[in-house]
Amino acid sequence: MNSEKNIRMEHDLLGAREIPADALYGIQTLRGVENFSISKFKLSQYPLFINGLAYTKWAAAEANHQLGLLTDAQYEGIKAACQDILAGKYHDQFPVDMIQGGAGTSTNMNANEVIANIALKHMGFKPGDYEHCSSHDHVNRSQSTNDAYPTAIHMGMYASHLALVPHIKELIAAFRKKSEEFAHIVKMGRTQLEDAVPMTLGQTFSGFASILEAELLHLDQAAADFLEVNMGATAIGTGICSEPGYAEKCVKALAEITGWDITLAKDLVGVTSDTSCMIGYMSELKRIAVKMSKISNDLRLLASGPRCGLGEINLPARQPGSSIMPGKVNPVIPEVVSQVAFKIIGNELCVTMAGEAAQMELNAMEPVMAQCCFESVDLMANACDTLRTLCVDGITANEDNCRREVNRSIGIVTALNPYIGYEHSTEIAKKAMETGRGVVELVLEEGILTQEDLDTILDAKNMVRPVKLDIHPKC
Amino acid sequence: MNSEKNIRMEHDLLGAREIPADALYGIQTLRGVENFSISKFKLSQYPLFINGLAYTKWAAAEANHQLGLLTDAQYEGIKAACQDILAGKYHDQFPVDMIQGGAGTSTNMNANEVIANIALKHMGFKPGDYEHCSSHDHVNRSQSTNDAYPTAIHMGMYASHLALVPHIKELIAAFRKKSEEFAHIVKMGRTQLEDAVPMTLGQTFSGFASILEAELLHLDQAAADFLEVNMGATAIGTGICSEPGYAEKCVKALAEITGWDITLAKDLVGVTSDTSCMIGYMSELKRIAVKMSKISNDLRLLASGPRCGLGEINLPARQPGSSIMPGKVNPVIPEVVSQVAFKIIGNELCVTMAGEAAQMELNAMEPVMAQCCFESVDLMANACDTLRTLCVDGITANEDNCRREVNRSIGIVTALNPYIGYEHSTEIAKKAMETGRGVVELVLEEGILTQEDLDTILDAKNMVRPVKLDIHPKC
Amino acid sequence: MNSEKNIRMEHDLLGAREIPADALYGIQTLRGVENFSISKFKLSQYPLFINGLAYTKWAAAEANHQLGLLTDAQYEGIKAACQDILAGKYHDQFPVDMIQGGAGTSTNMNANEVIANIALKHMGFKPGDYEHCSSHDHVNRSQSTNDAYPTAIHMGMYASHLALVPHIKELIAAFRKKSEEFAHIVKMGRTQLEDAVPMTLGQTFSGFASILEAELLHLDQAAADFLEVNMGATAIGTGICSEPGYAEKCVKALAEITGWDITLAKDLVGVTSDTSCMIGYMSELKRIAVKMSKISNDLRLLASGPRCGLGEINLPARQPGSSIMPGKVNPVIPEVVSQVAFKIIGNELCVTMAGEAAQMELNAMEPVMAQCCFESVDLMANACDTLRTLCVDGITANEDNCRREVNRSIGIVTALNPYIGYEHSTEIAKKAMETGRGVVELVLEEGILTQEDLDTILDAKNMVRPVKLDIHPKC
Amino acid sequence: MNSEKNIRMEHDLLGAREIPADALYGIQTLRGVENFSISKFKLSQYPLFINGLAYTKWAAAEANHQLGLLTDAQYEGIKAACQDILAGKYHDQFPVDMIQGGAGTSTNMNANEVIANIALKHMGFKPGDYEHCSSHDHVNRSQSTNDAYPTAIHMGMYASHLALVPHIKELIAAFRKKSEEFAHIVKMGRTQLEDAVPMTLGQTFSGFASILEAELLHLDQAAADFLEVNMGATAIGTGICSEPGYAEKCVKALAEITGWDITLAKDLVGVTSDTSCMIGYMSELKRIAVKMSKISNDLRLLASGPRCGLGEINLPARQPGSSIMPGKVNPVIPEVVSQVAFKIIGNELCVTMAGEAAQMELNAMEPVMAQCCFESVDLMANACDTLRTLCVDGITANEDNCRREVNRSIGIVTALNPYIGYEHSTEIAKKAMETGRGVVELVLEEGILTQEDLDTILDAKNMVRPVKLDIHPKC
Repeated sequence: MNSEKNIRMEHDLLGAREIPADALYGIQTLRGVENFSISKFKLSQYPLFINGLAYTKWAAAEANHQLGLLTDAQYEGIKAACQDILAGKYHDQFPVDMIQGGAGTSTNMNANEVIANIALKHMGFKPGDYEHCSSHDHVNRSQSTNDAYPTAIHMGMYASHLALVPHIKELIAAFRKKSEEFAHIVKMGRTQLEDAVPMTLGQTFSGFASILEAELLHLDQAAADFLEVNMGATAIGTGICSEPGYAEKCVKALAEITGWDITLAKDLVGVTSDTSCMIGYMSELKRIAVKMSKISNDLRLLASGPRCGLGEINLPARQPGSSIMPGKVNPVIPEVVSQVAFKIIGNELCVTMAGEAAQMELNAMEPVMAQCCFESVDLMANACDTLRTLCVDGITANEDNCRREVNRSIGIVTALNPYIGYEHSTEIAKKAMETGRGVVELVLEEGILTQEDLDTILDAKNMVRPVKLDIHPKC
Repeated sequence: MNSEKNIRMEHDLLGAREIPADALYGIQTLRGVENFSISKFKLSQYPLFINGLAYTKWAAAEANHQLGLLTDAQYEGIKAACQDILAGKYHDQFPVDMIQGGAGTSTNMNANEVIANIALKHMGFKPGDYEHCSSHDHVNRSQSTNDAYPTAIHMGMYASHLALVPHIKELIAAFRKKSEEFAHIVKMGRTQLEDAVPMTLGQTFSGFASILEAELLHLDQAAADFLEVNMGATAIGTGICSEPGYAEKCVKALAEITGWDITLAKDLVGVTSDTSCMIGYMSELKRIAVKMSKISNDLRLLASGPRCGLGEINLPARQPGSSIMPGKVNPVIPEVVSQVAFKIIGNELCVTMAGEAAQMELNAMEPVMAQCCFESVDLMANACDTLRTLCVDGITANEDNCRREVNRSIGIVTALNPYIGYEHSTEIAKKAMETGRGVVELVLEEGILTQEDLDTILDAKNMVRPVKLDIHPKC
Repeated sequence: MNSEKNIRMEHDLLGAREIPADALYGIQTLRGVENFSISKFKLSQYPLFINGLAYTKWAAAEANHQLGLLTDAQYEGIKAACQDILAGKYHDQFPVDMIQGGAGTSTNMNANEVIANIALKHMGFKPGDYEHCSSHDHVNRSQSTNDAYPTAIHMGMYASHLALVPHIKELIAAFRKKSEEFAHIVKMGRTQLEDAVPMTLGQTFSGFASILEAELLHLDQAAADFLEVNMGATAIGTGICSEPGYAEKCVKALAEITGWDITLAKDLVGVTSDTSCMIGYMSELKRIAVKMSKISNDLRLLASGPRCGLGEINLPARQPGSSIMPGKVNPVIPEVVSQVAFKIIGNELCVTMAGEAAQMELNAMEPVMAQCCFESVDLMANACDTLRTLCVDGITANEDNCRREVNRSIGIVTALNPYIGYEHSTEIAKKAMETGRGVVELVLEEGILTQEDLDTILDAKNMVRPVKLDIHPKC
Repeated sequence: MNSEKNIRMEHDLLGAREIPADALYGIQTLRGVENFSISKFKLSQYPLFINGLAYTKWAAAEANHQLGLLTDAQYEGIKAACQDILAGKYHDQFPVDMIQGGAGTSTNMNANEVIANIALKHMGFKPGDYEHCSSHDHVNRSQSTNDAYPTAIHMGMYASHLALVPHIKELIAAFRKKSEEFAHIVKMGRTQLEDAVPMTLGQTFSGFASILEAELLHLDQAAADFLEVNMGATAIGTGICSEPGYAEKCVKALAEITGWDITLAKDLVGVTSDTSCMIGYMSELKRIAVKMSKISNDLRLLASGPRCGLGEINLPARQPGSSIMPGKVNPVIPEVVSQVAFKIIGNELCVTMAGEAAQMELNAMEPVMAQCCFESVDLMANACDTLRTLCVDGITANEDNCRREVNRSIGIVTALNPYIGYEHSTEIAKKAMETGRGVVELVLEEGILTQEDLDTILDAKNMVRPVKLDIHPKC
């Protein structure tokens, strides 16, 4: 410690460097910061990932302590340090870029150094007094970046997953609420953008709810992969530098600390270079993104107008829509949701390519995968909330417009198929198209169905669900 | 029928057309062929998809018959027609392009027409005598393209999935077999392409087996989505033109015919425009593709040389490797496997974008999704077999080379960490690098560990798994 | 030659194999076929690629002959063989899978063997009499797969490019023709699917023409990269086994044979592992695909209805649109075009990933890149023709509908901005929205503009282009 | 102005809101911030994009002033405001999220509001005194978001392009420098990771330089698209609310202000919904990313070891490589470069999908495209600098190792092809493989070439370029 300059000296394989005396990070964090001046994404912006690191280091300390590889003081210090971090106290001490070479070594060492120095404070020492608690020999004891880093990602991503789910569920609930509100409104359904057959506006919104709901199971399945970890793998999965029993003790501790059902991977060599669970989770986020974008597109189509579009629903006005067209209100919220979807899909591709780049016993590309995963979860949560609170909750229906379109449509002829046959229906449809006349009028003119029968068949409630009607056409 | 010209006339909404008298397809198939001259992929090349159509139409006929909507003769005819198709008799009657507009209407009508005409033959009539059994009113009864087509894709893809799994399992078994064969061979593990710590060659191959094996569960989960169908949805999910009970009867019949645990989707409106299960299955195939490519890359790295590379294993020579370099033998099989992986990943993107393009009550882009799915399963099955039979089964090890590299490596110094600490180990590693000398020699020179201790620590079997050794360094 | 069994024996590094006596391919083609049973894509399906191989081999023979490295007889034989192939005579002799390991060696050897055997026929010998003209020492003289194969791809792709351009140009011309036909039809323009301001339907179609036209320059730029070749690079770019002057003579010959402005790459080592021109051409095809899909989506939106959509244009009916909904006609052609776009975008990703996988002096993944490139050009050409002939040419306008919507829109208030200011226009727009009344009516009521001024401002021809009007509002 | 609360009131179509009295942004910026709480990317982080907005607004003011549509005071105020922004004074006044709905309206209005308020200060008024200079009627005069926003993106991206190029050029120069430094070092070339034929290490590095250099032309071509703008298009390309001559005057002013060769798009309707130039630039960045990753992979392969890899070069040690393996130094810089490449490729996909989502007269997805473009340029510039300064500049060669490998390789047998034929060379190579003996030894044993001839043929300088040697084999 050079108190005059308010710095301390630290050294490593490559030499010695000055560190601000009160910095809780150390020389390897400094090197990481210098080497990777790459992106706007700093570790400090990803609190759940930092928590994942703290969980991991704490669990390792538990196992090492049980095996007699840490003194009580070291163990207590490391544990207290991890708890401080979990309490959010030291996030500013994680300055390394999320996108880094070295397969996460800079992130792992950033955590090791910060935890060692916080522990030293708890133990009554100054930052840098590593002989009492060292980032390598104590905090990182029995570990390698190659097991601690992916485990921390898993923990951070599982926490992110748990945080994300309620955002999706609330959006689903908002769609369900609207589906009840709109249950009585009959409107035209459209396939291939062409008029098809009637449905209720409620069915549209329950459809949105249902397709998102179907993903929750898949999302949980994908997240479950994060609960398998490779602690004890150390450098390449063989467990070198770890004692028998360490891996099991560490995983047990991790489960107790987090409260999650964490298991040890069976083949530690295989999994240590394997980042498939990130690809899997991103692919699942992508499926949701695809649906969010589809729903957003539908909202925009249904709200198109106000006078020259479909005009079936109204989205709440969020801002003047145009800098030139007075009175224009645009579907800005669905638009931003689709953009988030595209960004997530792009991130998924990045994760896929990075995942493919694993070589032999490691995948050095994990850091960018982690960045994309954490970014995507944040974006998805924000998109869900934005869509729900600034759009879905305020949607209203143009009931008259919906009903009017059903009545003048040709598509209702489909409801006659079971009674007069597809070919005959086709003829009526064709005549309606050519003459501009209505289906009901043409059918009555032919005298094949009575007004009463037609009323029954074309009763809205009979067109939006399977029915068996007592109809007797005359032909 | 115009017997002189050996044609028959058929007509539809758009007019009349000549059909070859003995053709089992009809006017809409003809229009489909004329409209979609797009790709090299014809429906006839995808037998399991055709089977999916046959399953679907048969099941619908069962339900319609039970509801009294088909005569016994029509039902028996349709059923026999579907069985003929499942027996592979009429694949040449499916000439439409897999990539088509109309959300699969051409494919659905191709099936309806062929089945109607085969049924007519069974019923004693000529092709085209549709008054006895019509493609629309009987074969397609209670259906729309929008339920029958996706259901047929689901059935075809589930059959494809069942066919694919054994190919993957056999490849896994081949890796397991090699892992046993190579269990005793010690070699250097590498992280970030740099020498790391020792492992066995058996661990490398069991790693390959394990990472693929982990996907089987995910693949089954993804495939399970195909077992949910939307029969009874008809045009948009509201079930128009179907009777109450039809959907349930149809799904029950489909389950009996296929022997699979098929269920009816809960929200038929939601699922009818939803193609998420194809995205899900392709994403899972992509995960496997990523691993297949990673494994292939590793095989190429490990086999690199023969004299200026890593040279740890030998791939079986499949063909002269070069048109100019005599004696060169290249890793052609792993190379083609990586290419298949890239093709599948490209297909997955196509499926994602097509999936995002759904609009309101339908996704008109399903046909290209189906093409990509079926193509990708075929490619994956071929890649698994090719990799297994033409490469993995014949791999041999260069045992001496592997052992020699371990002995001269610096990475074994890692095994000393628990006894002399990371910093001290680092000093020895650094000195080894600078002087070109060996780790063992340098440690002995320092006198901190005895020869006996070193022998114990560096015993191969102690370096490739967690150990607790009774070592007492002198420092 | 074993005449009894009607086979001949051939041998290579790996041993001897039987070849059908009259086959023009040889042992390495046979091995290629056996090794790569991967995809449905066989070399024989890609005639322009086969032509590319013929151009390349012919040019090499010219250079070798000039250098005295081939006899006159060998040269004449090889030249005649290449000309035969260019005449389309022997495409069935190219059975290898397009997707292959070995960086194209199987394809190159397939060409070498077929050309050698055709040459032998021209020289009066039997297939397999390689002492007179050998696939390696004569046809492949001074070459490696690593220069001949990418050069053949370049030649084949440039030919494909030249074949593609007219298809795009004809589509552009079709849009231009429609833009003239629709020049007088005023309709609402829409931004963000919301009513914006008036435009002509002609402007819509000239917009389609223009955005495609803008790509022709880029497409030519991208294709120009194919005109640079690496002949003379041989194995890795150093030119081993080639004589000084060979590369230049070969490129000169290639230019003469093809009539194209072909140049030799400056850094043969650099380019030999570089497949960037395929990525570049695919990226450009992707840009066009994006526009084709956008245009297709617009056509579907504008044609949506017939009664519950925008209904501004009518697409020609190509086939009955639905197996259940009578009279429905769907936009099947734009739909298939979007699907082609997605397939091309997927292929572009495959090409990108394969391009990234180059290692040191070669990219072993070129074969799948070539497959994707050739497939994509075919798809694009088919999509252009299909869109033009089956859709664009037959589009008609609903002129009354277009005009009616303009008149009832609120968007025309924008035209008042320059005279009454954005804020005032906004108030009128808001009142129109709230009351359902018309803009003209509200403005007149306020008395700020005379009927005459309003008529001038809202004259269609004054709203669809920049104007300076002599207007004097009273406020 | 409510001085007590230190706020001012602003109102728009949707109502009134409080704004901090000294804020230079206004109500629409506030709404934008509230509506789009989506990502970590704020406009204020993208200075060159903000500059692009300032250029655009300044040019519009010039044109409007020339047409008499702004007073001198307004014009001078707006101009001074834009100059202030270009001087970097007010970046903190741009708080809106880069990812936003509304097709950029929030960004455009943020710029309009800030510029209006700065102008007001210059004019001697207080923020919010819009009657003297209004964000809509003066700053945004003759404009729409739909021309001003894409023009600002174009200007910002062209500035970014100009800033990027030197970073790439310096990297190329660094490779060239190394190629000279290593020009004399002979090493094995490798194809498909297998030993091929000799080359110089200098050729490796000049190859890296050349393939990057080839992209500079393409990058310039792609950037040139940004110089075409659609000012005067206003809302949808028809120029509504703009006077004849405005567009031309505006573009001329923009050219003078920026010094760039800016042109007006020919078909303003077509281009206004067209974002192809962003796709094109991203595709080109992707091509560079692919090459950067390939080069990075090669550096890692060539530096693999130190003792169990190829070990031909040494990358400068940047940080201790492992938290567990002492002395390990990893290729962290090439690793981070590949990750940047993957991120850029992911961004390119996002841009492609967003580009495909254009609908009719606009593409509402432009904001995420802009975010991806600006982010990617930054990442690429950082990656170039990082790779150059922290890796390439410090690379050293292991000359002895390189030479030793050439001498023991079999690949040198290729150099004998022209003299003894491919088949004979193949036999020698095979024997070398089987016996482990050297090529030279085997050839001499056969007596077909003299020691002198062999020395000539295998002279390093004769193997790394085309040669014509006077050799007379005895067979």
